[in-house]
Amino acid sequence: MNIYEESLKFHKELKGKLEITSRVKITNEKDLSLAYTPGVAEPCREIHKDPSTAYLYTRKWNTVAVISDGTAVLGLGDIGPLASLPVMEGKSILFKEFANVDAFPIVLDTKEVDEIVDTVVRIAPTLGGINLEDISAPRCFEIEKKLKEKLNIPVFHDDQHGTAIIVLSGLINALKIVNKNIEDLKIVVNGAGSAGTAITKLLLSYGAKNIVICDREGALNRDTTYSNKYFEELSQITNPNNESGILKDVIKNADVFIGVSAPNIVSKEMVSSMNDDAIIFAMANPTPEIFPDDAKEAGAKVIGTGRSDFPNQINNVLAFPGIFRGALDVRATEINEEMKIAAAYAIANSVSKEELNPNYIIPKAFNLDVQKKVAEAVKEAAIKSGVATI
Amino acid sequence: MNIYEESLKFHKELKGKLEITSRVKITNEKDLSLAYTPGVAEPCREIHKDPSTAYLYTRKWNTVAVISDGTAVLGLGDIGPLASLPVMEGKSILFKEFANVDAFPIVLDTKEVDEIVDTVVRIAPTLGGINLEDISAPRCFEIEKKLKEKLNIPVFHDDQHGTAIIVLSGLINALKIVNKNIEDLKIVVNGAGSAGTAITKLLLSYGAKNIVICDREGALNRDTTYSNKYFEELSQITNPNNESGILKDVIKNADVFIGVSAPNIVSKEMVSSMNDDAIIFAMANPTPEIFPDDAKEAGAKVIGTGRSDFPNQINNVLAFPGIFRGALDVRATEINEEMKIAAAYAIANSVSKEELNPNYIIPKAFNLDVQKKVAEAVKEAAIKSGVATI
Repeated sequence: MNIYEESLKFHKELKGKLEITSRVKITNEKDLSLAYTPGVAEPCREIHKDPSTAYLYTRKWNTVAVISDGTAVLGLGDIGPLASLPVMEGKSILFKEFANVDAFPIVLDTKEVDEIVDTVVRIAPTLGGINLEDISAPRCFEIEKKLKEKLNIPVFHDDQHGTAIIVLSGLINALKIVNKNIEDLKIVVNGAGSAGTAITKLLLSYGAKNIVICDREGALNRDTTYSNKYFEELSQITNPNNESGILKDVIKNADVFIGVSAPNIVSKEMVSSMNDDAIIFAMANPTPEIFPDDAKEAGAKVIGTGRSDFPNQINNVLAFPGIFRGALDVRATEINEEMKIAAAYAIANSVSKEELNPNYIIPKAFNLDVQKKVAEAVKEAAIKSGVATI
Repeated sequence: MNIYEESLKFHKELKGKLEITSRVKITNEKDLSLAYTPGVAEPCREIHKDPSTAYLYTRKWNTVAVISDGTAVLGLGDIGPLASLPVMEGKSILFKEFANVDAFPIVLDTKEVDEIVDTVVRIAPTLGGINLEDISAPRCFEIEKKLKEKLNIPVFHDDQHGTAIIVLSGLINALKIVNKNIEDLKIVVNGAGSAGTAITKLLLSYGAKNIVICDREGALNRDTTYSNKYFEELSQITNPNNESGILKDVIKNADVFIGVSAPNIVSKEMVSSMNDDAIIFAMANPTPEIFPDDAKEAGAKVIGTGRSDFPNQINNVLAFPGIFRGALDVRATEINEEMKIAAAYAIANSVSKEELNPNYIIPKAFNLDVQKKVAEAVKEAAIKSGVATI
């Protein structure tokens, strides 16, 4: 039985990966009168007087919705909301298992940006935070932007920012190995979708100066006009030398290649054309842009992929649970750049000086200690940047 | 400390009455690859091919949303969504504790009927059923009607139908005591809101012929034109003798008084004006329309209230968990009249012939055996009436 057959059997036997449980036993009239009528009227009245007390008297403080419209699910594409539900349930239990966040999957039967925004805003009173998931680009940018404007709880599109944070943490450690500075690097990001865009923006926030981002047509630059307004924006803030050409042209003399694109599209020749001590994050899944052995043979120094069976797995699960834990713990109104960078540092610093080597720049996913460090760092950054409310 | 102070303390210490838990431990790569990527792609693909398999591979089969806009919460009125959340959490845990239904509270930041309908339809893929709660009349009628038209999962407004079912079950047993038939009765329902309307309709379905329903202005009848279209409809299907007047006029010679109205509005004189062996369900909370002792002194034979400290508590918790259990177990597409009446019979029949007496017509709320009987009866009725899909 392969992993897919095995997973199907597992899902069928389990009958749902999550469950909503009561934190209190209701076995007599007294229990009922405390947890429900008539006693419950009192917390209702208190919240009516002071809405912030909803964080004291309900589970709002610890509740996150994992929201998707099912338009960009794993490598499967637009399979619709219902078919995306197993992924959202999976994500929800990772929140619980890794950071004790109560996460509930809500899949939406609409693909209209404004309908999605309106729906999420309307269900938000229940929630302490919102994790957007598997929503296709460029719609995801608009949805996230509008939700952030309308809501005062964290809204976080994990496909964008979770990935960007892990890439940054990997890069922080890789640069220690190759002894280079972020400002001096030429970085090529291949793939201008949700992850590529977010990676680019976070690396710019972190201090990168020369990022060239490629879509299928080649490097985004200022000689071209883009109908996609997000490409237009990217072309303005990246590619300082206004390079043109396809991936094999612009990868020359790059220090870092970051792939969130397609299998096998990077050749050994392309890696050889990069600067010495090249860093390669080939995250196409399950088949990376180039396999680690080939990249190494062609001269790359540090290589990461999306897979758990190679060294240096770029795995979001290292970030999102701890990030929400930290944000919820201080009732942050958003998850901002400072908090993301703090999370990336926390993950990077979880690898000690002694442990650090080209095959170990990113800690293993099953390390709850990392989640705690991320939560703590995010909390501090929220306080420092003024978005914590307690 | 009174119950309100005690409940506030209880809520503050508990930090939320419910919790979302994982049904599977995630402690290594293998767990992750089964419950999440890459394995999870397989159930996604299966559901994409055949949407009905979502009931096999996710928790949809057992998940109900408890949905409110906070417009008619307990006796507190329109306190808004956030302040209603403690009630919805309470309701959710009753679903779990009494019938192992996974219920999640979703409070909506809108009062517009169509916005509520659109929002609920859009979040429905996650859900196996919808429990509407504390939504003000007459909006609740339109919301429920539209949702039933648009969705093929059960939609149940508990304030209406849950109450109606318990009243019917109480009436079934009270009639055994007074030895009267439903067809021969004059029934006065005081209160033409959500509960009064649903009680009236369910009793009509059950065979009642002469129901007079009163609002604050008096008996609804056909000499009056109502701007409220639901009042207009009720005036057409009730009051066969077209009686007019206020409550004290129409309660004369009634066999049954059902109050879902206001405290202390029924006098001993009014009860005395009723037929012999009068049945009184005085459900205003916490102060009933008339206290049981007074009603008894005035000649009533069977008296029920909404309170647990008097005999015969009319308590919805006897109905909704088992009803949803039964409906979910056969993937019913709706909860229809047949299922409601079956639930009422199951509750009534849970009181044995030996136990039955004027002070014990309704079983105690903390009787999980009743929930099982309700679930079983609802299941059978769903199958017989053709709304079960498995």
